[in-house]
Amino acid sequence: MKRSLKLILGIILFAVALSGILVAAGTGMQQPSTPEVSYPEGYREWAHVRSAVITQQSSAFKRFGGLHHIYANPKALDGYRTGTFADGAALVFDVLEIQEKEGTLTEGTRRFVDVMLKDSKRFASTGGWGFEEFNGDSKSERTLTNPTKQCFQCHTAQKESSYVFSSLRK
Amino acid sequence: MKRSLKLILGIILFAVALSGILVAAGTGMQQPSTPEVSYPEGYREWAHVRSAVITQQSSAFKRFGGLHHIYANPKALDGYRTGTFADGAALVFDVLEIQEKEGTLTEGTRRFVDVMLKDSKRFASTGGWGFEEFNGDSKSERTLTNPTKQCFQCHTAQKESSYVFSSLRK
Repeated sequence: MKRSLKLILGIILFAVALSGILVAAGTGMQQPSTPEVSYPEGYREWAHVRSAVITQQSSAFKRFGGLHHIYANPKALDGYRTGTFADGAALVFDVLEIQEKEGTLTEGTRRFVDVMLKDSKRFASTGGWGFEEFNGDSKSERTLTNPTKQCFQCHTAQKESSYVFSSLRK
Repeated sequence: MKRSLKLILGIILFAVALSGILVAAGTGMQQPSTPEVSYPEGYREWAHVRSAVITQQSSAFKRFGGLHHIYANPKALDGYRTGTFADGAALVFDVLEIQEKEGTLTEGTRRFVDVMLKDSKRFASTGGWGFEEFNGDSKSERTLTNPTKQCFQCHTAQKESSYVFSSLRK
């Protein structure tokens, strides 16, 4: 192959690759390795939905064990009340280890922070929800390789309640 | 006694009683039987401070047992952060029965709602805090005969932390 032909092919391949990146950026399309849901800054001041303790006696202990709280931003709080979660609604599942002392269970070290973010266009194939999990107190260390797909495997069963497991306790 | 003398005495007694009521109202002084702290409307949307489970293995179970949450209004949230609670700061201690199913503890029926309200003038003799306890889901049924005095018997020990037992978990 002539040197000039190689150069032209190289330029064409580069242009194709670049246009692909630009199209992806323009449409918001992302590679699976690109984080889709950012850390939920300020969620500790969001409304508290409900809590529970998953003990060692539960089959869910290994994955979700601990004292957990669920928080909702204002749009998600409306979603619990109306049954419809608008784009921008976000929920946090905040899981802490259980500390036991003299018959009282309190919150220990944070295990992880799970987030659900509603964006009906970006996450059209998963009921409009994107998912993410942050390790411990980290705002950047993600624990799952494909969080939206992995989390939706269970959340898909909750289609009748907008893919949300929890309800707002009074 | 002459009839006119009785009338004068009656008028004097009435005037003394009335002035007492007016002075009491003017200074905010209240009878112990008059509720001093009102129901904390909207507290379920206040910031969530922390939670704990007081189990049957705890010596505090009878009085405070259950899955409880502490909530802070915006002024109280500032108080946790700065160490100084401004007048108007309010805290809620929301106690629910524990429901256990397959190793998971969840929130059952509400036992009571305790409130602390900061008003440094009205409650000068109890560290600036007034207290109240509402039964179950009731917004009017009070459980204690002299809540501020009764609650302060324990809270007085927390003088170094502004008479507040809890701290804001991160």
